[in-house]
Amino acid sequence: MSENFDTVDIIRTKRDRQRLSSEQIAWTIDAYTRGVIADEQMSALAMAILLNGMDRREISDWTTAMIESGERMDFGSLSRPTADKHSTGGVGDKITLPLAPLVAACGVAVPQLSGRGLGHTGGTLDKLEAIPGWRADLSNEEMLAQLESVGAVICAAGSGLAPADKRLYALRDVTGTVEAIPLIASSIMSKKIAEGTGALVLDVKVGSGAFMKDREQATELARTMVALGTDAGVRTVALLTDMSIPLGLTAGNALEVRESVEVLAGGGPADVVELTVALAREMLAGAGRDDIDPADALADGRAMDAWRAMISAQDGDPDAELPRAAETQQITAESDGVLTRLDAYQVGVAAWRLGAGRARKEDPVQAGAGVEWHARPGDTVRAGQPLLTLHTDTPERFARATEALAGAWEITEVSAYSPSPLLIDRVAAD
Amino acid sequence: MSENFDTVDIIRTKRDRQRLSSEQIAWTIDAYTRGVIADEQMSALAMAILLNGMDRREISDWTTAMIESGERMDFGSLSRPTADKHSTGGVGDKITLPLAPLVAACGVAVPQLSGRGLGHTGGTLDKLEAIPGWRADLSNEEMLAQLESVGAVICAAGSGLAPADKRLYALRDVTGTVEAIPLIASSIMSKKIAEGTGALVLDVKVGSGAFMKDREQATELARTMVALGTDAGVRTVALLTDMSIPLGLTAGNALEVRESVEVLAGGGPADVVELTVALAREMLAGAGRDDIDPADALADGRAMDAWRAMISAQDGDPDAELPRAAETQQITAESDGVLTRLDAYQVGVAAWRLGAGRARKEDPVQAGAGVEWHARPGDTVRAGQPLLTLHTDTPERFARATEALAGAWEITEVSAYSPSPLLIDRVAAD
Repeated sequence: MSENFDTVDIIRTKRDRQRLSSEQIAWTIDAYTRGVIADEQMSALAMAILLNGMDRREISDWTTAMIESGERMDFGSLSRPTADKHSTGGVGDKITLPLAPLVAACGVAVPQLSGRGLGHTGGTLDKLEAIPGWRADLSNEEMLAQLESVGAVICAAGSGLAPADKRLYALRDVTGTVEAIPLIASSIMSKKIAEGTGALVLDVKVGSGAFMKDREQATELARTMVALGTDAGVRTVALLTDMSIPLGLTAGNALEVRESVEVLAGGGPADVVELTVALAREMLAGAGRDDIDPADALADGRAMDAWRAMISAQDGDPDAELPRAAETQQITAESDGVLTRLDAYQVGVAAWRLGAGRARKEDPVQAGAGVEWHARPGDTVRAGQPLLTLHTDTPERFARATEALAGAWEITEVSAYSPSPLLIDRVAAD
Repeated sequence: MSENFDTVDIIRTKRDRQRLSSEQIAWTIDAYTRGVIADEQMSALAMAILLNGMDRREISDWTTAMIESGERMDFGSLSRPTADKHSTGGVGDKITLPLAPLVAACGVAVPQLSGRGLGHTGGTLDKLEAIPGWRADLSNEEMLAQLESVGAVICAAGSGLAPADKRLYALRDVTGTVEAIPLIASSIMSKKIAEGTGALVLDVKVGSGAFMKDREQATELARTMVALGTDAGVRTVALLTDMSIPLGLTAGNALEVRESVEVLAGGGPADVVELTVALAREMLAGAGRDDIDPADALADGRAMDAWRAMISAQDGDPDAELPRAAETQQITAESDGVLTRLDAYQVGVAAWRLGAGRARKEDPVQAGAGVEWHARPGDTVRAGQPLLTLHTDTPERFARATEALAGAWEITEVSAYSPSPLLIDRVAAD
């Protein structure tokens, strides 16, 4: 870093709606990593970025600087192409679990670096940790070896990738600056680009249970991320998918593993199958294998074989009984009719309060806790039939979970009702 | 504080252009004072306030909360009314020095709590500390006793008044959030209201040497502060005055004391006399004494007597020789003509670099350092005549001070030139 900048000048530049130069951005991320820029200065800058925006060049520079704050991985030595997926997070979003082995079964390696959950959306690692013995922490060598032998790995991101992002994310979380599209996009993409995947499919969720509540914002985020990936040489495409209704029929760690295994066995809820196959097609196409239909690998058991190999390779027992919560409570339908609404956010909060999620990073999660729903919007229900089942090891949590669900669904006397489509849009490079 | 709020919710509220409730604001200042709100959270909030503003009710609540973070003074026991003045800061602005004794000589007590300088504008305490023996730190009892006996006191604000402001100001200084009108107004007014003055005159400077570069911003700041004072029961009025040209003929600590004494002796530069008398009239009117003409007290020596008593009461020797800088350097006029411009900001930076000001709070200042100018805009000059004299104890500073002055003045062949008026506008309560 040859040049030296003044932190207050940089904050003022963005505050006054000017563009930051490439040199200013590189210096800012480096200085923040070195502790020259203090947290209270970075948070003021983050708020200015949230309110005044960054253009495509600035976001690209910011992402590059984040990547350069740490190490880069290289999958060039693998014998097969690589493709990864990232979801912006939703309720009941267990798609990574069936998707990674499915794509691996089709001959494309999936290096999936995942995180733990915070708030009302679950984390992929929390879900897999419900499997007895399974471990999330792999060395880079173990990860590469498993990618070569099994073709799929889901593990914790090492602290070496984009360390500036880790610090900045924690700061944004406590300063009301999470919701800045330039910062969300660069946070996600810096890790995915540093990870070294050849192709990337982004599942950008829209709706009450998602980070982005409206389609316009979600489209802007998708476009920004696709541009960043493309500029960095990663074949990137984004699907906008609905998150006003939770995915599948379960939200909770062991509950979602069970549902994922059903999908791998050729069953499972239709929406989970639909999204898994759609994302698999995009990943295969990104890796140059659009000649392969992933539905076949799901039907003939190859995806299930890959799942078993993937879990075993990380010391998990694919045949082990999954944990069940100590207590359950049922909620029944209050009238006859068609279920016309089931709010993803409220279901997510209920699962979280039952013990499936955490409020602070250091909190433990309950493997068996969560919510099952026995009908999806569009289904006909009868008064008194079970509508939801709440699971927890700590029954004192039922009350607050039930509170979170107040008004979360609607049963209407309608003759026909079609729920909103799951796949909303597709955003590819210009 | 009965209610409890979430800091991130409060930041988000202002970020999303909503109004903060009175309860939220009271909690915010109290929580920041107690350390519950961290600096990185307050700086994000300050940036959101800077960019999204606050309305009159919010600013009033913010000011009240700052006042309530500390103690309030009470001058109710004094036998005379009180009036104070605050200037937003300018180059060569020594007005407080002749003004306080002048108003005291007219029978109105002046409790002037002042600060030290930072950056290109000097501080009143730094100037008075050029007088051998004079001390800035008085107890509240000493202050009250001096107000009763002498009628004027200029001293350091104790740490008990609006302590939240002190911490917030230091934070704003390093986070690019100084320039927020709601925060400037509440910072100034919380201290003045807590101080307990009955009347207040604000000297809001406009121009290159001032904090507010344009009249529109200065007017908004003036209106905001007048409303805050009025709402708090302080009779408040503001004068907008020009700061594109430095005040008087000197900028520097001992240099400005000398010029102030000339004014008290009935001489001195016309603009310093004009502004001193104008502000004195407003202070007297605010204290209900608009029957008195301060020009008389300046002419007949009563103001000088009050000055001598005020300096002596704080252990200063009004007859002592004032410090002079060890070295001087002259800059001469390069051509014949009329001086049509002398930039206040550049002169202020030169005085600062010569040692009259400080870059960091803990830096010392040189009593003798500064800049004298021998002509003011409108004056005719001849090539080769002395235009400026630079003063410093550390001659290696001449070069950087001269650099700061590059292009700071203009000498033009014009037949007639009238400089911009000193008094621009007057803002009173609605």
